[in-house]
Amino acid sequence: MTDRPETDDQCIFCAIAAHEVEASLLHEDETVVGFMDLSPVTPGHLLVVPRKHAVGPEDVDLETSAHVWSVDHQMAKALRRSGLQCDGINVFLADGEVAFQEVFHFHLHVFPRFSGDGFTIAANWQERERSLLDGEADAIRAAIAV
Amino acid sequence: MTDRPETDDQCIFCAIAAHEVEASLLHEDETVVGFMDLSPVTPGHLLVVPRKHAVGPEDVDLETSAHVWSVDHQMAKALRRSGLQCDGINVFLADGEVAFQEVFHFHLHVFPRFSGDGFTIAANWQERERSLLDGEADAIRAAIAV
Repeated sequence: MTDRPETDDQCIFCAIAAHEVEASLLHEDETVVGFMDLSPVTPGHLLVVPRKHAVGPEDVDLETSAHVWSVDHQMAKALRRSGLQCDGINVFLADGEVAFQEVFHFHLHVFPRFSGDGFTIAANWQERERSLLDGEADAIRAAIAV
Repeated sequence: MTDRPETDDQCIFCAIAAHEVEASLLHEDETVVGFMDLSPVTPGHLLVVPRKHAVGPEDVDLETSAHVWSVDHQMAKALRRSGLQCDGINVFLADGEVAFQEVFHFHLHVFPRFSGDGFTIAANWQERERSLLDGEADAIRAAIAV
């Protein structure tokens, strides 16, 4: 809930990983911690984070990132079996303030969905011309190669 | 854009992976395909999917899932370097119709974000009592163990 990146010392998720502040823990291993979101979209909303401080995808190595995801995937499957109301699931990552990141420690959201749960998304979805899509694909492919 | 799971033969993403329908491809390997979303949230919106048909996290093995995620992570980094407008990034997975899944072949969305891009989310966020969070954590942990 800050408006700019925290340092390691000020980071609430670092403090949770270090057991310095209260949390409802779900999973702990050498590189990853999972715990309940304090202000959930729906009951069961959880977060998976790397133990080591990192702000966004630019700061997390691919191995750690893949492990965060794998724990996340296992948590998503567990939600379906937990008895909590869960007719669907969303996974969400916010990288950057403009993308709704509020805690500047890399975290994957996972939350149950059900009819009438109050979560909505909106965008200016429009089918896009193939020539534009091809041009954007070219730009992204060129950036992968760098 | 269907209202129920497709079979493999009817699946648009399977057809894209098989080069049977047009797409603006970004990445191809033995297990994963990446391509531009036809109706993007923002220019640069892309999808990463397993080549083999799977509907949701229940149907994708962890190894394939981790590879989808790793390609996705690399694409997110490429978006930041692509020259496309990209001040932040969201990653989104929809598992189930109630969670806004429209194509019933497992796919990770990645899209650039910038101020005024028109993408919004809304929910009934409220801080939740610790006793409730602890109870939900217990239920999820028990379901992981199963």
